[in-house]
Amino acid sequence: MKPTAPHAFLTLNPAAGEPYYRQIYGRLRTAVADGLLKPGDRIPSARALAAELGLARGTVESAYSLLAAEGYIESRGQAGTVVAAGLRARHGAGDEPEAAGAPVTVAPYDADAASAADPDAPSGPRPFQMGIPALDAFPRKIWARLAARAVRATRPADMLYPPPAGLATLRAEIARYLQLSRGLCCTPEQVIVTAGYRDSLNLVTRALLKTGDKVWVEDPGYPPTGALLREAGMQLVGVPVDDDGLQVAQGVKLAPRARAAVVTPAHQSPMSVALSLPRRLELLDWAARNKAWIVEDDYDGEYRYVSRPLPALKSLDRDDRVLYAGTFSKVLFPAIRLAYLVVPLSQAARFEETARHFSGGCPALTQAIVAAFMAEGHFARHIQRMRRLYGERRELAAAGLGSVLSDYLQIEPRPGGMHLLLRLRGRRSDRALAEKMRQDGMFSRALSECLLAPRAGQPAMLMLSFTNIDTRRKAQELARRILALLPPA
Amino acid sequence: MKPTAPHAFLTLNPAAGEPYYRQIYGRLRTAVADGLLKPGDRIPSARALAAELGLARGTVESAYSLLAAEGYIESRGQAGTVVAAGLRARHGAGDEPEAAGAPVTVAPYDADAASAADPDAPSGPRPFQMGIPALDAFPRKIWARLAARAVRATRPADMLYPPPAGLATLRAEIARYLQLSRGLCCTPEQVIVTAGYRDSLNLVTRALLKTGDKVWVEDPGYPPTGALLREAGMQLVGVPVDDDGLQVAQGVKLAPRARAAVVTPAHQSPMSVALSLPRRLELLDWAARNKAWIVEDDYDGEYRYVSRPLPALKSLDRDDRVLYAGTFSKVLFPAIRLAYLVVPLSQAARFEETARHFSGGCPALTQAIVAAFMAEGHFARHIQRMRRLYGERRELAAAGLGSVLSDYLQIEPRPGGMHLLLRLRGRRSDRALAEKMRQDGMFSRALSECLLAPRAGQPAMLMLSFTNIDTRRKAQELARRILALLPPA
Repeated sequence: MKPTAPHAFLTLNPAAGEPYYRQIYGRLRTAVADGLLKPGDRIPSARALAAELGLARGTVESAYSLLAAEGYIESRGQAGTVVAAGLRARHGAGDEPEAAGAPVTVAPYDADAASAADPDAPSGPRPFQMGIPALDAFPRKIWARLAARAVRATRPADMLYPPPAGLATLRAEIARYLQLSRGLCCTPEQVIVTAGYRDSLNLVTRALLKTGDKVWVEDPGYPPTGALLREAGMQLVGVPVDDDGLQVAQGVKLAPRARAAVVTPAHQSPMSVALSLPRRLELLDWAARNKAWIVEDDYDGEYRYVSRPLPALKSLDRDDRVLYAGTFSKVLFPAIRLAYLVVPLSQAARFEETARHFSGGCPALTQAIVAAFMAEGHFARHIQRMRRLYGERRELAAAGLGSVLSDYLQIEPRPGGMHLLLRLRGRRSDRALAEKMRQDGMFSRALSECLLAPRAGQPAMLMLSFTNIDTRRKAQELARRILALLPPA
Repeated sequence: MKPTAPHAFLTLNPAAGEPYYRQIYGRLRTAVADGLLKPGDRIPSARALAAELGLARGTVESAYSLLAAEGYIESRGQAGTVVAAGLRARHGAGDEPEAAGAPVTVAPYDADAASAADPDAPSGPRPFQMGIPALDAFPRKIWARLAARAVRATRPADMLYPPPAGLATLRAEIARYLQLSRGLCCTPEQVIVTAGYRDSLNLVTRALLKTGDKVWVEDPGYPPTGALLREAGMQLVGVPVDDDGLQVAQGVKLAPRARAAVVTPAHQSPMSVALSLPRRLELLDWAARNKAWIVEDDYDGEYRYVSRPLPALKSLDRDDRVLYAGTFSKVLFPAIRLAYLVVPLSQAARFEETARHFSGGCPALTQAIVAAFMAEGHFARHIQRMRRLYGERRELAAAGLGSVLSDYLQIEPRPGGMHLLLRLRGRRSDRALAEKMRQDGMFSRALSECLLAPRAGQPAMLMLSFTNIDTRRKAQELARRILALLPPA
C-alpha cells in the first residue's frame, strides 16, 4: 500500500458554477486518467478531505460515491479507500498490462427504444412496453401552453427550411443541459439535431463510414442498432458483454481494425450493466490508436436510482473519437421524433453538410417547443420528477411481480434504467415466454432475442418496463397473467 | 384522315362524384391508352360532342384543353381535332415505331426545393428564393388554432412512437386529395408519410435499389436528387431533356437496364417543360419491360396557370412501376418537414417495414395538424387561393423585371410553376450572374448549375421565384439591383 497520494490538484474553485462535490469528483477523475493517481494509491478519507477543504463531509461523500459507482475508487474497509485496481492512465506506461476490470457496482437498466414502435398500439402503451416513459406523468398542460405560444409566435422566417443541424436556440439548450447533467462540455456547434436515434445513426454512417466497414456492436445488444448498421452496408462484429460491459479486449481480438463501435455505456442494452471505467479507457485508447469512431448511445443515462447518473463516456473523450447520441424519446415522449448527436468540433461541419444533403432538418415547431421547455426549466424539473417516480414504480413493480412469481422468476438487482431484468428459474425458454406474453397483449423482450446469433450458456431473462406501472396491484394483476402463461415447471 | 372515331365509350355517369369534364377527359385518355383511339383518329368537335351528351360546350372544351395540354390530342384547324401523332397504345401493336413526340403545349415551371434550404436565411426568404411558397399568404391564424387544438387533444396513446408509415387519418386525407386533384387513385395503405422529399428518396433507394444500381436522372435536373442518389451508392445516368421532357429513347440508349428513373413530369426541374404523353407512355413501357422503378417527383404539380393541373404520371401507371413523391413544403411551408410517397400496393408493406427500420416515423403533432387542415377543407382552399395569387404574382414579376431588363433577359413563356425562367441575351454566363446575385443577397440559380457535367450549346438561363414578389414595384427594384450587376454587353 502506497502512502496517501498528494492532493494539491484538489484546489477547488468557489466561483465556479459547478457544485463542490462535482468539482472533487472531476478533479479526482482527471488525476486518475492523467496517471497522477495510480491503482492502489490511497485517497484521503471523506472526513479528512472535508476538514482539509473546509466542506461538509457529505459533500465529499457524494463525490466518492459517484467515483465508486463508476469504478474509479474502491473501499478496502479499515485499510481506507484506494484507486481501483484495474485502472490505467490513458496512453500511460501500461504498467498493468492485464486490464483486470475494477469490480464496479453493476449498473442500470435500459429501455429498448424501437421494439416499442408498435404501430398498432391501441389507447396507450402495452403493459411492460419498453422505451416508453410514464405518459400519465408528462406535464401536458405546460406542454400545450408552450406549443400554442410557439405556433402563434411563428414568423414567415420560421416557415422556411429549418437549419439542417437544428435551431440555434435548441442546440444551445441541449449543450447547456449536457454540461450540467451529463458532465459533457460541448459548444452548440457540436450539437446536431436529428429526427431520432435511427436518424442519428444513419447520419454517422453517412458522414464517417463506408460500405463494408467493420463495426463493433454489443452482443447481446439493441437489435435495431444491428439491423440499421447492417442495412447501411456495415459488417457487424458482435463483441460479448460481461458485468463490466463491452469486452473491449475481445473486440480487439475479433476486429482490431474496425472503423467504429456502437456502445451503451450508461446502461448496457439489454444487460443493464455500466461500462466500467477501465473498459471506458481501453475503448477510448483503442479508438484513438486506430482512428476509429465510438457511438455512445445514451438513451436513458439520466435514470439511475441508487446514485447520481454516471457522466457520459464522451466526457472522457480527449481525442475526439466519440459521437454522443441522446434522444428526447425517453425523457419527453416518443411521438416527438427528436434526438441529437454531439460530434467532435472538427466534424461539425461535415455532419451539418451531411444533414443538409440527407434530411433537410427537423420540423421547426417541434424544435421551438422543446427549446422553450428546456429554457424555462421544465425539462430539468421533469427529469428530476421522473427519476423519483421511476424509483417508486420500480419498487412497486418488483414487489408486485415478486409476490406472485418468485418461484419462477428472480429479479436481478440493477441500479437504474427504465425496466426490470428477470431471470427465469429452471430450464424455461425466455423467448417462448416472451412470445406468449406478446400474444397475450403484453410486451416482453427475451435476452435471447437480443443476441446476434444463438449462443449456449446465456441465462434466460426477460426485460419488462415498469415506467407505466403505477400501483402494486397492477403489477400483481399482470404477474397473475404471466403466471397463467407458465407451464408447470 | 380516318372518319370520326366511335365514342360509345363516352357514356358519362351523372351519379359519379367526378365532374363531367373530368369524366370526358378520363374516358378519352383511357381510349387512347387502350388503343381504341389511334393517332390521327378524328374526335368530334366540342360543339358536336356537347350536343350529343347534352352538356354545355364549355364543359367539353375544358376536357379537350386538358387533353391538348397533355399531348393526347391536337387541333388541325379546319380539319378538326385528332388524336396526336406520336401516341401509341401501351403494350400496343407498335404500328408507329418512331415515337415522334406530339407537339405538346410546353408546360410549367418549377421550383427548386432544396436549393432553398438556406440555414442562414435572415428574417424571411431571400428575393427570388426558389421552392418557398408565398409565406405572407399562409393562413397562420387558422393553422395556429388547429395546432393548439391538436396539442390539447393529445392523449397518452398519441405520445407513443407514431406509426412508421404515418397517422392513419393523414394517409386517408392524402389519398382523398390526390384522387380529387391529381387524378391519382390510391388507397391510404399506399401512402407512406415521410420527413421530406429527401427522406422519400432515401426510402426508395433503401426499399427497392442496391448499391451500384444505375438510375436515370434528368440532365439538366434538380441537383439534390443527383447528389442524394450518388451518395446512396447509385450510378447516375444523365438523360437529356428537350421540350417534351426526358428523352426516354436516349435513356434507353445510354442505360437500357437501369433499375430506376427519377423524373419531374409535371414541370421538369429546371426546364419547366411537361413530360409529353408519348414520352410518358414510352417511359412506363420501358419500366414495365425492365421491371424498373419510376420516381415521379411532383413537387409543384398543382401550380399551373394556363390550364388545369396535369394529372400525375402515376395515374397512368397500370404496371405498378411508379412511386409518386409529393411534398407539403411547397403547398404549406418548408419548415413543416412533411412529405409522402404513393407506392404500388404490392410494395406498401416493404416500404412500411423500411420506414420502421430507418426512420421510426414523423412527429405525430405535425401529422395531426396537417390531417385536420386537410379534413376541414383549408388545404384545398389554400391551394386554390395560391394558384390565383401565383398567377397574379407571376404577371407582376414578369412585367416588373421585363420593364427594366428586357435588353438583357428574355422571359420564357411557361404555363405554370413557382418561378420564372429567364434567358440571357448575348454571350453572358448564367453562372456568373447567378453568383453575383447570391453575393448581393438575392437568390438565383443558373441552368448551367443544374447540369450533371458542363455541356456546350446549352442556353444561358436563370431561375427566379416570383412567389414572394407581391408588387410590380418590388420586382422593378429587384430588377434594378440585377441591372447594376450586369457588365455592359
